[in-house]
Amino acid sequence: MRDSAGGARVFDLEQPRTAEMPVYPSHRPGYSYLLHRHHEDEYDPEEGGPRTSASGVIICMEHTGTHIDALCHQSDALRLYGGIPVDGRVQTSRGFTRLGVEEIPPIVARGVLLDVASARGVDCLEPGYAVTVSDLEECCARQGVAVEPGSVVLVRTGNARHWNDPDRYLAGPGISADASRWLAGARPLAVGADNMAWDVPGVKDPELGCTLPGHLLLLARYGIYIIENLMLEELAAAGVHRFRFVCTPLKLVGATGSPVRPVAVESW
Amino acid sequence: MRDSAGGARVFDLEQPRTAEMPVYPSHRPGYSYLLHRHHEDEYDPEEGGPRTSASGVIICMEHTGTHIDALCHQSDALRLYGGIPVDGRVQTSRGFTRLGVEEIPPIVARGVLLDVASARGVDCLEPGYAVTVSDLEECCARQGVAVEPGSVVLVRTGNARHWNDPDRYLAGPGISADASRWLAGARPLAVGADNMAWDVPGVKDPELGCTLPGHLLLLARYGIYIIENLMLEELAAAGVHRFRFVCTPLKLVGATGSPVRPVAVESW
Amino acid sequence: MRDSAGGARVFDLEQPRTAEMPVYPSHRPGYSYLLHRHHEDEYDPEEGGPRTSASGVIICMEHTGTHIDALCHQSDALRLYGGIPVDGRVQTSRGFTRLGVEEIPPIVARGVLLDVASARGVDCLEPGYAVTVSDLEECCARQGVAVEPGSVVLVRTGNARHWNDPDRYLAGPGISADASRWLAGARPLAVGADNMAWDVPGVKDPELGCTLPGHLLLLARYGIYIIENLMLEELAAAGVHRFRFVCTPLKLVGATGSPVRPVAVESW
Amino acid sequence: MRDSAGGARVFDLEQPRTAEMPVYPSHRPGYSYLLHRHHEDEYDPEEGGPRTSASGVIICMEHTGTHIDALCHQSDALRLYGGIPVDGRVQTSRGFTRLGVEEIPPIVARGVLLDVASARGVDCLEPGYAVTVSDLEECCARQGVAVEPGSVVLVRTGNARHWNDPDRYLAGPGISADASRWLAGARPLAVGADNMAWDVPGVKDPELGCTLPGHLLLLARYGIYIIENLMLEELAAAGVHRFRFVCTPLKLVGATGSPVRPVAVESW
Repeated sequence: MRDSAGGARVFDLEQPRTAEMPVYPSHRPGYSYLLHRHHEDEYDPEEGGPRTSASGVIICMEHTGTHIDALCHQSDALRLYGGIPVDGRVQTSRGFTRLGVEEIPPIVARGVLLDVASARGVDCLEPGYAVTVSDLEECCARQGVAVEPGSVVLVRTGNARHWNDPDRYLAGPGISADASRWLAGARPLAVGADNMAWDVPGVKDPELGCTLPGHLLLLARYGIYIIENLMLEELAAAGVHRFRFVCTPLKLVGATGSPVRPVAVESW
Repeated sequence: MRDSAGGARVFDLEQPRTAEMPVYPSHRPGYSYLLHRHHEDEYDPEEGGPRTSASGVIICMEHTGTHIDALCHQSDALRLYGGIPVDGRVQTSRGFTRLGVEEIPPIVARGVLLDVASARGVDCLEPGYAVTVSDLEECCARQGVAVEPGSVVLVRTGNARHWNDPDRYLAGPGISADASRWLAGARPLAVGADNMAWDVPGVKDPELGCTLPGHLLLLARYGIYIIENLMLEELAAAGVHRFRFVCTPLKLVGATGSPVRPVAVESW
Repeated sequence: MRDSAGGARVFDLEQPRTAEMPVYPSHRPGYSYLLHRHHEDEYDPEEGGPRTSASGVIICMEHTGTHIDALCHQSDALRLYGGIPVDGRVQTSRGFTRLGVEEIPPIVARGVLLDVASARGVDCLEPGYAVTVSDLEECCARQGVAVEPGSVVLVRTGNARHWNDPDRYLAGPGISADASRWLAGARPLAVGADNMAWDVPGVKDPELGCTLPGHLLLLARYGIYIIENLMLEELAAAGVHRFRFVCTPLKLVGATGSPVRPVAVESW
Repeated sequence: MRDSAGGARVFDLEQPRTAEMPVYPSHRPGYSYLLHRHHEDEYDPEEGGPRTSASGVIICMEHTGTHIDALCHQSDALRLYGGIPVDGRVQTSRGFTRLGVEEIPPIVARGVLLDVASARGVDCLEPGYAVTVSDLEECCARQGVAVEPGSVVLVRTGNARHWNDPDRYLAGPGISADASRWLAGARPLAVGADNMAWDVPGVKDPELGCTLPGHLLLLARYGIYIIENLMLEELAAAGVHRFRFVCTPLKLVGATGSPVRPVAVESW
């Protein structure tokens, strides 16, 4: 779509949210929307006039659907980014008093798409594939882009097309620990991908000794946000590799992440 | 703040979300965030390495905090915008199949701030005050702005400063039915204000025969979105009256609204 | 177990509640328990002494796990039991103002077990099997029991043993419309079974023109409560066919059902 | 009411559950019931016949309304009853693996009511009043009852009559640490009262160094369950001081408590 002011194309990078969307086991029961106020409930033309309202309730884990991870989401040996110890002053039953998602400013930044799937000539990288440093370097060279400090880097694996097939989606490709480390070295503000967990799910990194090594590196060691479950198909199909990236995490005070609807705005 | 690309100032228009924020009675129990996965839960350096995760659950009504109303939120004698009858094909227990919030595109539009509080020389309009057509016309003249088709109009009453005093906030000022009608005539894409319900709460409009007449007019009759509980103090203090307005409602399929974090970007 | 007063055996008829238990599609996302207050959170021996608390949140549909259906749960052509029309005075977004589950008194009644599975010489009736009037009559004769007015009748299909295999459990046997009608004629206070929906799921009754005919008959036409997902294996194994039945639905004001933990007390 | 089998009077000891009921601050947002499936939603006489369903969702903290505390609810210097250390094997994000509420058997026991309010000649003990050992001893003498091992002791302060006035209710009387210790010495299975927290809220015990000393003593040190927010007015008005007490906590696996509807059955 074009923005209403008439010029730039705006690409919507959020997947639709439904109770059926893919959910990681630790985030069950995922997402639900229930409509309890129905229009008929209060309709009384004599007393209330013609106007009626409907509304519902959202019950969701903050790491479902397209979302951003706050820095408090991960710890490195029970220390948050910046060396903050995880204790009762920082971590409470109602969320974190430091590094919660409300500390992420509205993101209005330069963005680049590294389209690994296209570079490798496939619709979607195979399940379990770990994107390498070479993959990213080749994308940069092929597309004529670089990862700049303060920018946002989106990595396309092609997995977004499997959103409606949760088992296939969850088993998808991811980003290797080395590639996360390479990206972190370039000091982006945030990174993102079109899969559930940025990393390849379930694979323990031999060097770091943990699963989801990119989470440890990016969030807890480098202070770089991760955006997950992006919908990158339209952006890639349009061949748009540089854009203004806008993402505004909700200020859910103390939360470890937020649902988001990022957009890429062309020729800002 | 400045955007990370270096130039434009970005104003954050969202109020922080906490369990204590003001909530309209029909939207109780409002908003809660509960952190159930704590970092210590899984910390096992031998088996799991140094990485741990924390995360929680969000339980909220979609009309709490800074949010946008979808067109299905209101009916006019049991018809939605465009004359769509409210029946079981359109309204279900899991939300609406037409005019749900997921149908709102990412909003990237021209925005204007009509600062009524400043024009009237007060910090905040008094509780129950209904902004008039004259108020809006004077703001436009004073500020040298006009309401253009497809733009977004934000009306400042000054009420945002009472966010931490729920009783005072909920009893705040609002927009009169005439002012809503005047705005609707200019065909903006969306309107917004710094109060709970756009309209003056609890007042029945004699002509339309209902409370919240702006809701009936804007949503059900004109198809214009309403954004509520905006934080407009910084934007007003900076004297920024024209801006690029960006607001990306979450695609909560079938929902009657969405929490949002709108931003105003200066000198786009 | 024996009651603590020393005499009677007490049989626990509730299935355990977990996030993994079988759930009917219309009752998703079922049941969750999330522990957000952890003991460490507040532990401060200097200030707070040795005592700490932990607690969590329950999110559940009322028709999950072992539960009782209130009369308002079902309508017969939009009329509740007793001919009450379903309108906005009776049905609200916060529940029913008539025939809600809080109107069910504590049930302390004579109970009988009709053990159809044993009578037919099987561990569990086959999936889709519909218990007939003959099945019930034979059980009564074989066991030397009768269905008395005001009593509670529990029908055992053997399906309870599949509780940990949700697909198998949900596809289980049920009670035929004729058997429901036969039971209703005897005017029990409540009936119950060891399956998800009393009736055989998904089968449309040719005469009544609807699925779950027992629900229509028992709740909407006869005013007889239905208890679902009972655990009847221990009771059957002990050969106890007559007992004092105690079941205390929570007074969830306006709700269409309640989770319960019924017990059968022998030789009351 | 009389039980349906004809003889004994059955007293309902549960307060009604509504969104407006008193809630302790640490248990906000308390309790909600939202009806999202309305009867009209699916009514289609041609296709679906006359039967329709309605149902909703319950969102509640387990320590709201009339409820029982599980042993895992309290720790004594991070040890649960029996000396079990609070660690990640015992305490998880989904609840406790030891001493959860599902371990409480159905309670069918001898019960006594110690009616302190009546003994002191008042409708309700004053806010902040702490029931003493003498109060309990006098009640036992006056009423001719004793606290027996394995029995359930209900203490009436008269506070139940303030259920609909949450501020007054929450500020009510409680049981002193000495009285809790005296009761614990008699080894009842469970104790209960008609207030929010058994103990006097907010008062730090000088000897134990913590608030809610009865919680520490009864749950963490003696393994005695506590039942809170009982409705004891009818039972007291009837002068019934000995009864069969039945209380069946839901098997919410891992939870720290359960809503309950206890009953007192006279002349069992």
